[in-house]
Amino acid sequence: MDPLDIVSNLHNIKPVYQPVVSAITHDVTGYEVLGRYYTGKEWISLGPFFHDDDVPEEFKVEVDQHLLEIALTDMVASNQETYLFINRNAKQLMVNDGQDLLDTLIRFEQKGVSMGRIILEVTEHDFDEAFDSLHHLLLYYKTYGIQIAVDNVGAKSSNIDRIRQLKPHILKIDTKLIRRHNEDGFQDIMYSLSMLARRIGAALLFENIEDSYQLYVAWKHGGRFYQGYYLAQPAFKGTPQSPLQVDVAERVEGYVRREKVLVEKRLRFILSWEDKLKKLLPQWQGPKKVDAFIHAVTRYFNEESFRMYICNSDGQQISSNFRKRKDEWVLEENKRGSNWSFRPYFLENMMHMKTWKKAMLSDVYSDIDTRETIRTFSYPLSDQHFLFIDIRYAFLYENECLLI
Amino acid sequence: MDPLDIVSNLHNIKPVYQPVVSAITHDVTGYEVLGRYYTGKEWISLGPFFHDDDVPEEFKVEVDQHLLEIALTDMVASNQETYLFINRNAKQLMVNDGQDLLDTLIRFEQKGVSMGRIILEVTEHDFDEAFDSLHHLLLYYKTYGIQIAVDNVGAKSSNIDRIRQLKPHILKIDTKLIRRHNEDGFQDIMYSLSMLARRIGAALLFENIEDSYQLYVAWKHGGRFYQGYYLAQPAFKGTPQSPLQVDVAERVEGYVRREKVLVEKRLRFILSWEDKLKKLLPQWQGPKKVDAFIHAVTRYFNEESFRMYICNSDGQQISSNFRKRKDEWVLEENKRGSNWSFRPYFLENMMHMKTWKKAMLSDVYSDIDTRETIRTFSYPLSDQHFLFIDIRYAFLYENECLLI
Repeated sequence: MDPLDIVSNLHNIKPVYQPVVSAITHDVTGYEVLGRYYTGKEWISLGPFFHDDDVPEEFKVEVDQHLLEIALTDMVASNQETYLFINRNAKQLMVNDGQDLLDTLIRFEQKGVSMGRIILEVTEHDFDEAFDSLHHLLLYYKTYGIQIAVDNVGAKSSNIDRIRQLKPHILKIDTKLIRRHNEDGFQDIMYSLSMLARRIGAALLFENIEDSYQLYVAWKHGGRFYQGYYLAQPAFKGTPQSPLQVDVAERVEGYVRREKVLVEKRLRFILSWEDKLKKLLPQWQGPKKVDAFIHAVTRYFNEESFRMYICNSDGQQISSNFRKRKDEWVLEENKRGSNWSFRPYFLENMMHMKTWKKAMLSDVYSDIDTRETIRTFSYPLSDQHFLFIDIRYAFLYENECLLI
Repeated sequence: MDPLDIVSNLHNIKPVYQPVVSAITHDVTGYEVLGRYYTGKEWISLGPFFHDDDVPEEFKVEVDQHLLEIALTDMVASNQETYLFINRNAKQLMVNDGQDLLDTLIRFEQKGVSMGRIILEVTEHDFDEAFDSLHHLLLYYKTYGIQIAVDNVGAKSSNIDRIRQLKPHILKIDTKLIRRHNEDGFQDIMYSLSMLARRIGAALLFENIEDSYQLYVAWKHGGRFYQGYYLAQPAFKGTPQSPLQVDVAERVEGYVRREKVLVEKRLRFILSWEDKLKKLLPQWQGPKKVDAFIHAVTRYFNEESFRMYICNSDGQQISSNFRKRKDEWVLEENKRGSNWSFRPYFLENMMHMKTWKKAMLSDVYSDIDTRETIRTFSYPLSDQHFLFIDIRYAFLYENECLLI
């Protein structure tokens, strides 16, 4: 389509609405506005028009303003408390200092559409040139109560520092990431992003959910909002709540059941390992015979572990490393004296063990030496001495509940 | 200096070594090689030469190769098992497909310098143009045992996805970040980075440590390696271990003491809150009188909390939200029925509380609604019902042990 045809035939343009589903209510909580153009024969997407760098930004602003007017008018008519997600690229926002958008929103605020219901989606990686000006514009929008979503987070150019500076309300994650990466890669990225989101108080929105597995992944990784063809197609006049294709509440019930079974199995491992050690505890003869004690432990964790050691409450390793090489446990005496207090949560975890006299199992992480995915099981031998048993990857792999 | 003067007077060029200190041994574990040029009057840094985009890459390669030859010769002579950190920019590495560097290292491997002792530092953000080729070159280097460090992580252009793909052994963080950001910003970035590092099995190295506070921050955020003028200046012929200006072991002992005091104070809060609730527990009359129970709890947490609610073991909120507005606790009944099971660790934490019948205190995080920094204290009322007490920012702020 010729962009000029589009911009001079605004009467042929109408918004479609794609539902956004809330993980809290399991129902539609808002709609993303997308554009459609009637060619005389059929309705086509305006995506190519908006993504074409050769189309003047002023054209895009004009079409987007037209779509927004209709969407806001629909919102006033529908009388519902849903959110409206709208997209603007960086260059568009810079046209006329982003005042057109704000003027329209102020006008409709007087008709009852509160600014807090507007979510402005921007793509972080097209900020490259004018990050500071855009950052300030978004801050200005925020003062009106407009919410900010950063689109396409986790893709090539998203970075921690910028996301933190923007402090968006929502991080929007393209579920296609799952397909682009292998399982591990996706997990690592999602873990870092969800921790960042938690720190800055941003919600995660997963878009492009196309099947039941992807909805599960979105739920599992802390997604507060879901969007995609699997849940609902974009539709004209979406403001009257269109029924979802999927019973999200029912799906989530299933996920919860599955998750609880997995956690329960994991807890059973912790309790059984703790039990083994409780029985071995009479053999603990204090820090002077520390290697001998580990030696006694090894055969009870032969299958699970590849490395064990004991630290005191200052984080200092007071034993050798016991390492499994093939079927033998080998002593690495030079590791004695290593200090592990700098590791995140190390001291805190020891003091928890001491206070509640119970074992702990770490999250999944990658060992710096072997670079394998492992967990660490730890157990208080006394108020001052703690046993660390590193669980090998193969054992985690054989027991799904330990791997996730 | 004219670059041509430098490259045609290699005999005036010598390496200096800046010690890298290990958090595990509290001693020097390696040296970063930097270049110095003798002008006839004084020794000047070659930093400007290497950072000048107008200097041909071939010149830089030649100077770097010369420095490396001397450094490796020094290493052979010193007979020590330290690491050697060397810097290369992306363009330099692409000259002659990075073969010059590899040839030199192979030559010195035969003289006893194992490839595992070489750490190649690259800057991720100058990868922009040729990420894929560089990624492959680094993979190739890794097969020889060479370790990869990514420099300047956390700065403007570092991004999660790329760092994950490169899977470096070390993430090098410029401690200047602390000064560029406010305290919160630095904490958020470091938290995300240290979690990413943990997932991919990378160690954190903090460089440019200039004072005692920065060393503490580096230790506190999981730094495994430290570098900077505060610890040691770069020096000629550094391979014989130069004494550190600071007794790192003694410093870390101090940090450990401080940290243990803080954790202990935090644990005391948990225990005292748990105690209050144990005493209130007889008033718990099951899910039908859930709001009445919270009402009874509010006055015992008037100072600490701004929001409370109760969930069942499926993550469903079965009470109203109790919210403190000024000095009044207000009920938000519409929150009943909200499902929180999607939140990371939510189900897992509930099952932990159920299994060990004990309270839990969350990490510090930002509330999505108020965007304030908070913690959540949670307590098992029964096997099926869990009370959540959100601790307000002002209370955390007044008690340092809760804020960090």
